[in-house]
Amino acid sequence: MVRNAERRLILADAGVRVLAERGARGLTHRAVDAAAGTPRGTASNYFPSRDDLISALVDRIGERLLPGPDAVSSDGTRAPDRALFADYVRDVVRRLSADPHVSLALFELRLEAARRPSVAATLGAWRQRAFQDDVTFNDASGLPGGPTEIALLHYAIDGLMFDHLTAPLDTGLSVDAAVSALVDRILR
Amino acid sequence: MVRNAERRLILADAGVRVLAERGARGLTHRAVDAAAGTPRGTASNYFPSRDDLISALVDRIGERLLPGPDAVSSDGTRAPDRALFADYVRDVVRRLSADPHVSLALFELRLEAARRPSVAATLGAWRQRAFQDDVTFNDASGLPGGPTEIALLHYAIDGLMFDHLTAPLDTGLSVDAAVSALVDRILR
Repeated sequence: MVRNAERRLILADAGVRVLAERGARGLTHRAVDAAAGTPRGTASNYFPSRDDLISALVDRIGERLLPGPDAVSSDGTRAPDRALFADYVRDVVRRLSADPHVSLALFELRLEAARRPSVAATLGAWRQRAFQDDVTFNDASGLPGGPTEIALLHYAIDGLMFDHLTAPLDTGLSVDAAVSALVDRILR
Repeated sequence: MVRNAERRLILADAGVRVLAERGARGLTHRAVDAAAGTPRGTASNYFPSRDDLISALVDRIGERLLPGPDAVSSDGTRAPDRALFADYVRDVVRRLSADPHVSLALFELRLEAARRPSVAATLGAWRQRAFQDDVTFNDASGLPGGPTEIALLHYAIDGLMFDHLTAPLDTGLSVDAAVSALVDRILR
């Protein structure tokens, strides 16, 4: 069983790499096996359909975006003020920047969602839950920023990461400066 | 010559369609000929290399994003205030929403730019020029918003359009409301 769980993880990580490096159309069971170094047929064994494969990738992307041990603490020792909220947003951006394959894979899947309703359903449900969790978290911890602010920040940070990870504009702003300015202005 | 220019346009529009519908990896000379209904070999005749084809698509995307006759006027009859700037931004969003293939094709090319330096060069130069033009335009017409505000709006509108054209989150905000809130908060 452990063996299976491990192999599942290796295959999912290989899938994320394939998506990031070759785009959604490059994502085939065969490409995943090649990237994972597993015998041909292994990926199809674990994820029989392309939808199963994409579901597994969405789950794995979610895991890789979870806060690590060095993340900003939410243990309640800090006041739930603008500064703490800004630190949370900076934390998310740090995680996205540190693992560019995950962000690129996610952008690829979102474009694929524009073409395939089944991908839109899987990915849409996951993103909607994440958005709702953010809204609930801010509300429960007394942080500033309601649904509107969180929505606007989602859009802005997405656009910033898309720029940063593809062919960035020279706008005179570093990613850090842009994040600070966005939080400062959107959160009012 | 007219015939050639027309055919060039038909091929470029077919290329935009292929990009939007099949992604960057689906963009081949053969797919462009099929989408354009031209004999095989035509696209290669007009755009010998893939880089030539992508260059032509970037140019065509730029043309399709130009303001039409119904755009907000910049003839100097309105005061260069926040309201006029907000109207310009809404105009851009309207053009992007009305021609989703162009926006999707552009996102595909930007992801391709993360993988191919030649695409990054072509696309990067075009986007940098567009950004610089925006900054110069605002400055010359006395509109509010300098490089920082224009950069932040670029990011935020990109993220908003990406969401809107793929599997949109239900954030409780319409595209219009999000644009107004973003302009209002970023432009201070």
